[in-house]
Amino acid sequence: MIELELIKEAIKKRKARSESYRDLEFLRFSDDFQDIPRGTVVFKEDIIWGYPHIGRIFMLERGIREQFEAPFWVEEKVDGYNVRVFKHSDRVLALSRGGYVCPFTTDRLPDLINLSFFEDYPDLVLCMEVAGPENPYIEESPPFVKEDVQAFVFDIGRRNSRELLPVEERLRLVEEYGLPGVRVFGRFSLKEVGKLKEILLELDKERREGVVLKEDSERNKRAKYITSYANLSDIKITSKNMLQLPPEYYTNRILRLVLFLEEESIDKSHELYEKLGRAFIDGLFEAIEEFKREHKVSAHYRCRFRSRENALVFMEQLSKHSRHIQVIQKRLEKEGDFYVLEFEKVFMSMTGLLGHLLGGGLVFD
Amino acid sequence: MIELELIKEAIKKRKARSESYRDLEFLRFSDDFQDIPRGTVVFKEDIIWGYPHIGRIFMLERGIREQFEAPFWVEEKVDGYNVRVFKHSDRVLALSRGGYVCPFTTDRLPDLINLSFFEDYPDLVLCMEVAGPENPYIEESPPFVKEDVQAFVFDIGRRNSRELLPVEERLRLVEEYGLPGVRVFGRFSLKEVGKLKEILLELDKERREGVVLKEDSERNKRAKYITSYANLSDIKITSKNMLQLPPEYYTNRILRLVLFLEEESIDKSHELYEKLGRAFIDGLFEAIEEFKREHKVSAHYRCRFRSRENALVFMEQLSKHSRHIQVIQKRLEKEGDFYVLEFEKVFMSMTGLLGHLLGGGLVFD
Repeated sequence: MIELELIKEAIKKRKARSESYRDLEFLRFSDDFQDIPRGTVVFKEDIIWGYPHIGRIFMLERGIREQFEAPFWVEEKVDGYNVRVFKHSDRVLALSRGGYVCPFTTDRLPDLINLSFFEDYPDLVLCMEVAGPENPYIEESPPFVKEDVQAFVFDIGRRNSRELLPVEERLRLVEEYGLPGVRVFGRFSLKEVGKLKEILLELDKERREGVVLKEDSERNKRAKYITSYANLSDIKITSKNMLQLPPEYYTNRILRLVLFLEEESIDKSHELYEKLGRAFIDGLFEAIEEFKREHKVSAHYRCRFRSRENALVFMEQLSKHSRHIQVIQKRLEKEGDFYVLEFEKVFMSMTGLLGHLLGGGLVFD
Repeated sequence: MIELELIKEAIKKRKARSESYRDLEFLRFSDDFQDIPRGTVVFKEDIIWGYPHIGRIFMLERGIREQFEAPFWVEEKVDGYNVRVFKHSDRVLALSRGGYVCPFTTDRLPDLINLSFFEDYPDLVLCMEVAGPENPYIEESPPFVKEDVQAFVFDIGRRNSRELLPVEERLRLVEEYGLPGVRVFGRFSLKEVGKLKEILLELDKERREGVVLKEDSERNKRAKYITSYANLSDIKITSKNMLQLPPEYYTNRILRLVLFLEEESIDKSHELYEKLGRAFIDGLFEAIEEFKREHKVSAHYRCRFRSRENALVFMEQLSKHSRHIQVIQKRLEKEGDFYVLEFEKVFMSMTGLLGHLLGGGLVFD
């Protein structure tokens, strides 16, 4: 439970606010507040706790030595968006990391997971990554999802509890209900770092994001580690809209990249220099070309809905919650079993800046 | 004059504070406040106005068309630090851009400029860039200063006035007193952009910073434009201490770099990709290597003083005003006519972060 006084204080400090999804009313923590993580959602009777922050290690070998004291599970980190799926009254809903009900994921749940799971376990919460080329949120997509989207369960929690199930218990449930799970590389002893490094070099080569390590112990401690490929890819994909992200986004990734090479004693090759330079430059050139052609910088999305109404609710919600982004619906039509929604996000800051700069404007910095 | 009420308000809002230099007391504007620029200094009888901000154009041709309505002077922008030199009572002092009296520059004035200028013009203020490999502030140095430091006068102002002299008047005084001036490429008509572009390509090749454009008109409007070389060099020199600067420092420069290439229709060559990547990666690798060797990340400086006492005042002032930097004096000895000061700046944030990361620490981002 969260005490009523604390909720009042959070609302006063604008760290929590009331939200609605169709006829449903709830309270959402929009930021971390005291020990309550961002994305925590409070309904009349229930709390769905925000998914906990997982710390990142930059050095694999030293990081494991410092952070873990027992064997740990190694699981793939999938590059998608994080949702928590749970049963509320008679329906199953998907919450985004920030605590909004996601109309897209909620609409597509029957295609993503076996919903009978919630008939047997109405109190459990599936924490999963949704990823694929037809997702409405992020431009990256893992190489192993070829179309539409797929779900990858990586944790199971419980309503009104901050605990996550031990990995083995989760694996048992995933297997029993045929749920899609993240790839599990196994349970490693503290001495098996060499084996883990090989896995990471392999993931890097296969253009995958990285791993999450989960200590097999009471405290269930976690850490994540990201491949060099993913750091470069993050820069490349976002540089077209560089103003949208905090600049730390870039400096952090460059630092991670260099430490990855440092640990692996990979030579600073011409190829790497070139890759990093290209990641920044190509996206920006693309933005400039697009601006000159269309007088705007934007990204195009396409995704599939089961219900037309959900697509409209999604568009309305996205427009309402996007700052500095204009959302334009391009097409919503039935194709086979699905309504295909196509929309465009216009990056207003980048569009405005390029308009100013290419038009010969002055900047005081 | 600045009204007393305004000064009181600025002090209350911590935009102005009292400072001292030896026996001298003055008020310094540490930030822009209303229309008073940062670095403005108020003595009992006099105001030395802060050097005005000069806007930057990212596109040369369009920028000139948009910003100027009359012919303009083109002058080299020298990569050093900005000081304002003026006579106060019976001594000549140098103020830093931020409004501190700089003990180094003040000490070296007799070597930098012909001080008899102030006997004839006690009311004028020389605005100049001080640059060279033995300056105590910045790690960059223009290729044409081979040792020690040199001054380059680029504007002349007047105490208690915000106006700067017209370029031709400044050039006359610079010539008359044999003052060192910035290179002046001449007075250009609005149609001579082609000629200006050639100059910039030349400056870029010669590893120089760029130009300042000054409209030859009543309003004396200015704009600056930086070479691609200087943008790369800024990244390269500072990446070793990436945490010290705001991350915008980097994203801004990448954007400028791309727009420079765009305007010049220079191909995105492998060479350029590589240069940008290298600018980031080499500095960070250097920081890591240094940390592993010496358990700190730092930069070494060396400069020459006429007086030993001024060197000590300089060290004291630098220590007091450096945030997140530890200043360590390494050596202060007479060599020929000068006292040579050697000191080290230890970058505490970068040292702390690398210690944490290389030691296997977790980061929540």
